[in-house]
Formats: sequence, C-alpha cells, structure tokens
Amino acid sequence: MYSFKNDYSEGAHPNILNKLIETNLVQQAGYGEDDYSTEAKNILKQKLNNDDAKIYFVSGGTQTNFIVIAALLRPHEAVISADTGHIFTNEAGAIESSGHKIIPIPTKDGKIKTEEIANILKEYNSPNTVKPKLVYISNATELGTIYSKNELSALFEFCKSNNLYLFMDGARLGNALTAYDNDLTFSDIAALTNVFYIGGTKNGALLGEAIVFNTSELATDFDYMVKQKGALLSKGRVLGIQFLELFKDDLYFSLAKRANDLCMKIINAAKEQGYSFLAETSTNQAFPILPNKLIEKLMQRYSFYIWEEIDTNFSAVRLITSWATDEDKVDEFIRDLKSLSL
Amino acid sequence: MYSFKNDYSEGAHPNILNKLIETNLVQQAGYGEDDYSTEAKNILKQKLNNDDAKIYFVSGGTQTNFIVIAALLRPHEAVISADTGHIFTNEAGAIESSGHKIIPIPTKDGKIKTEEIANILKEYNSPNTVKPKLVYISNATELGTIYSKNELSALFEFCKSNNLYLFMDGARLGNALTAYDNDLTFSDIAALTNVFYIGGTKNGALLGEAIVFNTSELATDFDYMVKQKGALLSKGRVLGIQFLELFKDDLYFSLAKRANDLCMKIINAAKEQGYSFLAETSTNQAFPILPNKLIEKLMQRYSFYIWEEIDTNFSAVRLITSWATDEDKVDEFIRDLKSLSL
Amino acid sequence: MYSFKNDYSEGAHPNILNKLIETNLVQQAGYGEDDYSTEAKNILKQKLNNDDAKIYFVSGGTQTNFIVIAALLRPHEAVISADTGHIFTNEAGAIESSGHKIIPIPTKDGKIKTEEIANILKEYNSPNTVKPKLVYISNATELGTIYSKNELSALFEFCKSNNLYLFMDGARLGNALTAYDNDLTFSDIAALTNVFYIGGTKNGALLGEAIVFNTSELATDFDYMVKQKGALLSKGRVLGIQFLELFKDDLYFSLAKRANDLCMKIINAAKEQGYSFLAETSTNQAFPILPNKLIEKLMQRYSFYIWEEIDTNFSAVRLITSWATDEDKVDEFIRDLKSLSL
Amino acid sequence: MYSFKNDYSEGAHPNILNKLIETNLVQQAGYGEDDYSTEAKNILKQKLNNDDAKIYFVSGGTQTNFIVIAALLRPHEAVISADTGHIFTNEAGAIESSGHKIIPIPTKDGKIKTEEIANILKEYNSPNTVKPKLVYISNATELGTIYSKNELSALFEFCKSNNLYLFMDGARLGNALTAYDNDLTFSDIAALTNVFYIGGTKNGALLGEAIVFNTSELATDFDYMVKQKGALLSKGRVLGIQFLELFKDDLYFSLAKRANDLCMKIINAAKEQGYSFLAETSTNQAFPILPNKLIEKLMQRYSFYIWEEIDTNFSAVRLITSWATDEDKVDEFIRDLKSLSL
Repeated sequence: MYSFKNDYSEGAHPNILNKLIETNLVQQAGYGEDDYSTEAKNILKQKLNNDDAKIYFVSGGTQTNFIVIAALLRPHEAVISADTGHIFTNEAGAIESSGHKIIPIPTKDGKIKTEEIANILKEYNSPNTVKPKLVYISNATELGTIYSKNELSALFEFCKSNNLYLFMDGARLGNALTAYDNDLTFSDIAALTNVFYIGGTKNGALLGEAIVFNTSELATDFDYMVKQKGALLSKGRVLGIQFLELFKDDLYFSLAKRANDLCMKIINAAKEQGYSFLAETSTNQAFPILPNKLIEKLMQRYSFYIWEEIDTNFSAVRLITSWATDEDKVDEFIRDLKSLSL
Repeated sequence: MYSFKNDYSEGAHPNILNKLIETNLVQQAGYGEDDYSTEAKNILKQKLNNDDAKIYFVSGGTQTNFIVIAALLRPHEAVISADTGHIFTNEAGAIESSGHKIIPIPTKDGKIKTEEIANILKEYNSPNTVKPKLVYISNATELGTIYSKNELSALFEFCKSNNLYLFMDGARLGNALTAYDNDLTFSDIAALTNVFYIGGTKNGALLGEAIVFNTSELATDFDYMVKQKGALLSKGRVLGIQFLELFKDDLYFSLAKRANDLCMKIINAAKEQGYSFLAETSTNQAFPILPNKLIEKLMQRYSFYIWEEIDTNFSAVRLITSWATDEDKVDEFIRDLKSLSL
Repeated sequence: MYSFKNDYSEGAHPNILNKLIETNLVQQAGYGEDDYSTEAKNILKQKLNNDDAKIYFVSGGTQTNFIVIAALLRPHEAVISADTGHIFTNEAGAIESSGHKIIPIPTKDGKIKTEEIANILKEYNSPNTVKPKLVYISNATELGTIYSKNELSALFEFCKSNNLYLFMDGARLGNALTAYDNDLTFSDIAALTNVFYIGGTKNGALLGEAIVFNTSELATDFDYMVKQKGALLSKGRVLGIQFLELFKDDLYFSLAKRANDLCMKIINAAKEQGYSFLAETSTNQAFPILPNKLIEKLMQRYSFYIWEEIDTNFSAVRLITSWATDEDKVDEFIRDLKSLSL
Repeated sequence: MYSFKNDYSEGAHPNILNKLIETNLVQQAGYGEDDYSTEAKNILKQKLNNDDAKIYFVSGGTQTNFIVIAALLRPHEAVISADTGHIFTNEAGAIESSGHKIIPIPTKDGKIKTEEIANILKEYNSPNTVKPKLVYISNATELGTIYSKNELSALFEFCKSNNLYLFMDGARLGNALTAYDNDLTFSDIAALTNVFYIGGTKNGALLGEAIVFNTSELATDFDYMVKQKGALLSKGRVLGIQFLELFKDDLYFSLAKRANDLCMKIINAAKEQGYSFLAETSTNQAFPILPNKLIEKLMQRYSFYIWEEIDTNFSAVRLITSWATDEDKVDEFIRDLKSLSL
C-alpha cells in the first residue's frame, strides 16, 4: 500500500548518504565544530545574504521550537500562534513544559493577521495575565498554505512596532519558497523575521533543522541552550553534512519543487473532478474534500489521513508528497481518483 | 595530527551506513513505529532476558539523562550523583533546568558507594530540603572505571530498600561490559538497575542511545516525555537501524572490545615506562600522569586533553580509543611515548 | 467613593484581629506547627467529616492553584478548565510556569459539563498532545454561579471513571455554600472532589486559603511542595488563627451569607428595574446589564468594574459585596439605581 | 520551656497590630496598590537615598529568593552561593525548581570572597556547563556573621567587572546593620548590591519581606513574576502596614538592636565561662560550643538547636534572640549557664 501520509516515510537523498560514506573516517571535532557544519553555515549565510546570522543545527522541529522559544522568553512571556500551529497542537506541551503559555488565534487557513495579534495585545495588557512576546508562524503552514511577501512584511512591521519577536517555523520552508504562487525569496525570510528554521527532515535529510537567528544579539548564549536541552549531537558532522549537501547546489529547492509539482498534479485532478478543498494550497499538502465512499475505496490502495469530517457524506483528507514520492504512484492515484469517482 | 581526544571523532560503522542505503527508499511509519526500530527492540529485550522491558531510542546522552530524570521525579525530588557524573559537570544544567537538584558525592574513581548515599539520606531528611529519589551512576564511569557485580548488586539492594531509583548512564556501557576485569553481563544490567541506557554514539553509531526501563510500570507515558522534550525523530528508522546493526550480531560488543584492547596497549606501555595513573582503568579511557615536557612534545603529533594538573611537573592526560581508532596510530603513539620519555 | 469592586477592600473580621493580639506573645513553633494551626485543622476535619483529610494553610489563591497542580501532575499532564477559570485568565501563567498546559472549555456561566470533558479526552488522545489529568472547577465560579449537588456528583463520577483528578477552587466557597439555591453541604465538597480549597481572603481573613486533600495519599510530600514554592510562612500561626476564628463557630458561613444577602438585594432591585444579567447568580457577585449612561452616573458615586460591552448602549457591570460591605451603602446604591434609571 | 530556637516564635510588634486594627475598615485598592504600601515604599526609597529603586512586598524569604532569582536569570544561568546559604540548604530546591543550578562555595563563616568567585568563573567557562550570573550573599549570614563595608564593596566591584548580579538576602538585615562592629549603612546596601531584601518576618512583622531593586531596569516586569509565583496578596495592605510601621520611625533598627544586645549578653557570658564559638558573631545568633552534659541540662529548661557535633564531648548550639525575647529569660539563661557549668 503506497503512503501519502507524510513527507518523512523514506530515508535521505542519495547525495547525503554518499557524503556520509565518503567522509566517514575523517576525524573531526565534535559538538558542531566539524568542517562540514562550518562550511554549511557559511553557504547558508551567503545565500541568506546575512553575514551576521547565527546558525545552529539540531535534530527535529519540536526540538527547535522548544529551544528557540525557551531561549528568547522570560518566565512571564507568552507565545501567540495560530490554533493550527504545530506548537499548539502537536508537540505534547513542549512550550508549556518550558514555562510559557501559548495564546491561540483561531484560523481557517493556518495563517495569522496583524489585527488578530493586535486584539490579543489589547486583551493581555496587565500583570494579571501573561505578556505576549513572540509570534510563531509556520511557512508553509500546517494546512499547506503560504504567506505572501506583503503578508509577511506586515507581520514583521507590526511585531517590530510592538516589541514582539517574529519566529517562523520552516519545517516545510522549501515547499513554501518553491510554490508556484510564492513571491518570497530565501533571503526575504532572513530580512522579515527575527529567527526562523529551515526544515531538513521533511525535504531530503535523514534528520536536521537549521535554526537561523538573523541578528547575532538574539543568539546570545544559544549554544548553552542547545546543550542544556540535549540537542547538541556529539557527532555534529551528521547534521552538517545534511545541510552541506542540501544547499551547496540548491538541491533543497529542487527537491521541494518536485514535491510541490507532484502535489499540484493531485490537486488539479481533484479540481477537475469537481471536488473542493479544506484549504487552498500550492505546496506539498492537499486537503481535498471527498465523498466518504470514495475515501473508503482509495484507502484500500493508499494510506493517508482523514483530516476532518465535513458532513455525513464528505470528509477532508490530507495527501502529502515529498522529494521521494514515486511519480508513477501519483499518476496511479489520479487514475483511481477519477475512475473510482464515477 | 591524530586525535585521541574522544570516541566520536569518526562517523559510523560501515554496516550501519550500508543498511541506511539498503533500506533508504522503503516507506516506513514515522516516530519510531518503523520495522527496524521494532526489530531492534525485540533483539535487545531478548539479549536482556526481559520481555517486560520498555525501550526507547533517542539521539544523545544528555538528552537521555534529561528526559529519563524528568519523567521519573516529582518536583521536590533530587538526584544523587558522583561529582564526576556527566549530569553534574557536563550537561549545562539540563537536570536543574527540569527542576531537580543534583546532590554530588565527592569521588576519586568516579564510583559511588552505599555508605555515601546513606549519609546523604541522613542529611536530607526534612521538607526544608529536597528529597533524594534517584541515584545516577555511569558504567563505565567518566574516569573509565567500572562497577563490579558485587558493587552494583549492593547499590541496587540499597536503593530498593530505601525507595530510590537506580539509573545507569551507559554512554560507554559496551566498554564496561567488555573490559578484561568486568564480571557483569548485559542482562545483569537489566536485573540490577531500574533504568539504564545503552550508548550508541560512542560505539559505532552515527547517533543514538537506547533507553531501557526494566519494568514497564516505570515507563508509563514515557512516549509523551520523549515527544515533549523534542527527542522523537520523524524518521525514527535512523535510530532503529543503528541498534539493529549493532546488536543483531553483537557488533556492539566486538567494537567496544577492540577499543578497550587498543587502550590497554597504551596503558601497558605507559606502565612499562613507570608512569602512574589518575584512575586505574580497563576500558577505552586512559589517564596516565606524564611529565609536562613529554606532554608538550606528544601534543605536537597527537591531540588529546590535559585532564588535571598534578603538580608543577606532572599532569594527568586523557587518551581515548574507539571502534574506529587506527591501530597503527596507537603503535606509533606508543613508540613516541617511549622514545620521547628518554 | 464607595467601592463594590471586590471582596478584599477591607481588612479582617475583628475576631481574627483580636485573636492575633490575644496570642501575640505566646511562643509557638514555626512553619505551621503551631497550636492554632493544629486546632484549626482538627475543626475543619471534623466539619468535613473526614479524618483522613490532609490540610495545609497558604496565603493566596493563585499560590494554592500553582502548588496543588504542580504537586499532582507529571510533566506531560494537563489541566482542563472553564475559559473563565481564574487559572486560565488571571494568574499570569502560573500553571504554565510549572510546565502544564491548560485546555479551556468555552462557557457562558463559568461551569463545565461532563460531555465537554469527554470531548477533550477524545481530542487529546495520543502522545503528540498533552494528557488531560486534572479538572479544575471554581465554586462559586468567577461569574458568581454555583454547582448543584447533581452537577458536582456527575463531574466527580466522570473524573473517577476517566482517571482524572477533580480540583475545586473555593476562593468563594463560603458564598457558594450559603447561596439560597445551593444544595451542597460543606462535607459534600470533601466527598465529591479529590482536592479543594477554602478561601479565607475573600471572606473575613486578612489572608489565607486552606487546601484540603480528601485522601492522604494525594498529599504525599505536599509539605515539600509548599516549602519549595515559597508558601510556608515562618509564622504559620498567622494563618492558623484566621481559620481557627472563621470555623470554630461557623463565622465563615455567616459572613458569606451576609455578603450574599446584600448582593441579592442589589440583584432584586435591578430585576425590579427590568434589567437583565450576564449570568444568573445567587452569591456575592452581580452582573447586571445596564445602560451606559446609567453606568456613567453610578460611577460618579461608586466604584465597580465594567465587565463586558454588550452593545453600543449597554454593558454588563460587576458588583461585589463582602462580609464587610456597609448595608447603608447598598441601600443607597439601590436608591440611586432606581432614581438614576428614570 | 522558654525558646531560643528562632526569631519568629512570637507574633508582631504591637504598633503593627494596632495599625491593622485602626485601618481595618478603610476601603483600599487590592494587590499592593493600597495607600499604606505606597507610603511605606516612599519612606524606604528616602531612607535608601534612591528614588529610582523599585520595591515589592512579599510574604517570606524563600518566596523572595525564588522569585528574584527566577526573574533575573535566563535558563542556562546559575547562582553562586556560600554552602551555608539559605537557598542552598533550606529551601527545598526552590531555585532548582525554577531551573537554575546553585554552585556552592565551602565556607566556615558563611561569607564568600572574590577569589572564590573568580575560581568558579574559571571552572565554569564553556557551554558544557551552566553560566554563573548571580552571586547570592546573606547579611547577616546564616551563621550570624556580617559583611564589612570593605568586603561588600570588593564583592560588588568584582561582580560589576564580571557581569554578575549581586543579590543580598536580608532576612536578618536589621541585625547586621545594628551589630556593634558593623560599618555599613542602610543606604550603603542599596549602593553596593543590585538587589536585596529587607526581612520583616524575623524582626517585628507578622510576615513580609521588602524586595528592593536598586535600578528600575532590573525590575522590568517584576510585577508579572510576583503574580505568577503566587506572591501577590489580594490584601496587599497587610504587607504595606508592616513596613510602614517598621520604618516610619526606625522601629526596625531599634528592634534589631535590642535582639543583638540580648544575644551579646549571652555571648559575653559564654566567653566569660571560657567557651569558644563555631562562628564569631555580633548579631542575634550565638553558636557557643558547649559540653554535651551542660547542653542536656540546659535543654530541660530552654529549647534551642544543637547545630553541629564538634567532638565526643562538645557540640555547637544555636541560640537566637529577637525583638520579642524576654530579657528576664536571657538573664535566667545566663545564670543557669554559669551555675550548670560548675
């Protein structure tokens, strides 16, 4: 049974595995001081057009969110997030475990707007409550949608004016930046956030996320935090090599684009069949609303998640593609979608 | 310059890399539910002679200590550790960051004794102080020494009688169990502790530690904790494959023994030259006390740590070997040690 | 300007002050081991009909919630609360600061129902999320409403069946138990919750809340927690004397009833004038919905909070009475309410 | 049996109780916004010669240390304290519970010196360890000794040069400042620390400590922290009145001096009998080393703590006097000390 459940069902891009083998017995310093990590960071700074950036490689997304937020906030400060935000729904209370409340904003499309943040600031305005200090956004969002340059600029302006940090979860940043309707560049992300991370795990790496502080000041003593939260790998080379291979020739973006293209094929096919969608997406996640009977039949051949019950006859499902998705299986799925819809 | 600084200067044993490549495109469930993890856990339970054990794979040692201790203790409970314990000296306050005090026991050889724990229980005996609840030991210790079966049995008996948990940090468990003077078996470790971990990173893995709860009861909801602390890899297969390859044919033990043997070569050579040692070791760490002038010369050809100044003329150094150490380099080092000692 | 803003604008009932003076120079043991605390606890256990209860006196309500919840939960466990719950809205993130997420239930009347809890349990059902473990309710609620015996019994049954703790915030427990339409007794509270607290500060005490664990098992090591969170007063006698005076002759209940009666006078007067209410209350809080123009005039003579804007012409206000409220001022307020309404 | 066990065996100075009664029914704002708190803060600022100071009243010493340290430190930062420090020995892990390690300095007299701090900074110098950031001292110390102006100036200079905060626990500040051999003034304390607190509980108050930040910048958002940690009393007037009465006419200092004088009487009597002391003190704590047989006899008439076993025949005891100590009992104790010593 072929799986469209997520973008981490396979291993790593072969370039990465080959580099691991090629460098395997070269002695290197531990704890992220290896040559591959250094080189990968230099490449990223160059591509981000920001020599002052501070970059740290860790293993996963929850870990990233946990450490970054713990490092930036004082004990009474809180995070603002969409109610679809990964930190709010899927991280087993990681942020709260470090002492911070998450204030959710209800959302249909996974994105948040400045007016919504402004309303929260009005409500949370005294020492009886926590103090909102950091705005967490995801791009692409957990619903596969993306922020436009206008939207992100407005958010960052608002945050700066209101003494808030803007932190972007980029678990699927590659997919966002290669969406057909995206107008943000990689270096825009550095210019329009305080801190963000570049997700490797879901886009070709075995594991690994690159945390980028766009000003070195915000990263003060961040190395202590990475160590304290158990995120500093002895063999930091493992992470350095992932990002070196993903970024030295822009493999990261071509892999993401491939995933998006395959997903758009599915989206367009579903549209042709007249189906609507839970969210309008252009990345590697599709949320078509399908008849339950069709879903049942498709699930005999493919695995994917039922995302939300819409009414007694219809449900939204989630289909995900990745750099490793087999295009033949996508085509087969589309054929089945059409024929089983009859 | 050849490095004897640590046991994580190289990558992974080739078997592991080969298995990563071989399985790379097989679709697998995420978050540790993959087939390789399951198989590796079954093999470990069998070798540990404990079907009731609960096993979790995470990325590193500090992460392991951080999560296990946070999972087992209530807020007012504390940890007892040797003052050489990794959690006390080298984890950037990870344990305290989860709210727990570490009560140190001064030690020369890295090991702790029941009388020392008993004294602490006498001192910490009221709600004015924290309540000692978990005893943390390392085997091999941070000084390369090991616990005998008698010593470990006595500790575990004492802990059980005093309502304390016994937790063994096994970052170098392979080295301990294959030391020439060791009398503990792998399954003894399961029988004589409440929880322990099997270090992969320092013995052939790219990354990975296997946490073993010897009774399932202590592991209640531990999966929540692993997720919350950011230790659950999306591609859990990466960790499963390490332990599958290390344990399916006891590679773990042969690699550790090789490291020990190379280290004993150095130890014996240093003894022949009449040098004494900071600690008597039989694992993969040697702490010879050498003349500073000799150290200076050796450091022009090899990298290693100066561990402790002994007096104005002598210092203890730390030399570490691993599964990947080049035997020729060991021999060369021994030749230099002899010739430069003249 | 007379204040109906809250129930802590004045000091303590004279009996308490007199007892403080009378006992002032009697030497007593510190840290809650004094005779007055012991006697007060014995009286409470008797009135609660529960010899096994464990009782602790601390200074305030936020402190109580902070310590009780931190003591009962493991790191991944969460609290369910009405979205009007004091812990959710007014404690500056105290619960989150101890590592625990609060899952809010939207409510109109400040109360929660078993179906709502059941829905949360369905949603929070995997280690990707926190694990709901404790249900926090307030009686009287923050909106002045109360739980009936049927409602509380149903909640407690549900909690027991689902392995959840039921914790009642009794900051205004006296007001709840003396409301004209209440059918719960003081000892019912002990029988139908796992833990609750009896609010002294808002009902005649200078300061002080009595935490009651209805089974001694749940209170294991709670004295460590009280100490650790800074809540153990050296002169514990100060707290013991408050509860001794409040409970030895049921002063606690007569004071609460007086506050309720005065509030009902206001409520009935507002009803007579045809005003509706944000919440139907029978305790010492009234939430009449008044014309903004009337509110403006009243505010020239009395201080109270505007609670919620209803529409462009009307707002709900909050009026609170207490044991110390001057009945003449209540009558004056009612006269003004009537005359200014014209 | 008369108690010399501590300085909190009695209630409050009568002036405070009288003021509580006198003001009891005056309506006041809650949460520390009452007139008495404001007036008390103004008086303190004036006496401290520091208009920029930020002052907060809380209930107890452990609470103070818990909140101040949690407010000032980032998660990876640590506290340096004497190993006799109250936070290290007697607060049930309060500091660690907020995530911070305490690095102890062994001491005979309860005081710490710049060289000792310097050594710690050398040892804790990488992200493998916590980062020392705050130096905690007590004056008077837990052993009754005091800091001279030279000593305190040296510490503060050192801290400033090394980017460390200096925090003074003043649970017995009154006793320190009125010791016969003290050369520090009240305003010196403000000039030579970053933050300190003025202990009320042990010097005439029912409860209450005044936290003083000597620069407003360090107090940023401290009111959130006080609320979050459950230390903000609804009836803040209770605390304001304590400090108003203690400081408006310098009652605080005359009470402390009286306690010291009574203690010196005991110290001098013990000296006359030829006894030595565990620590040379000039405040309200005496630590004479007495024959065990004498201790046994004295304990039939007086209660006090045995502090430390010196050898098989002698032990150090701790005797404490306070503002409320009965001078006749002191004289009686001295007579018994002399006659029973024969």
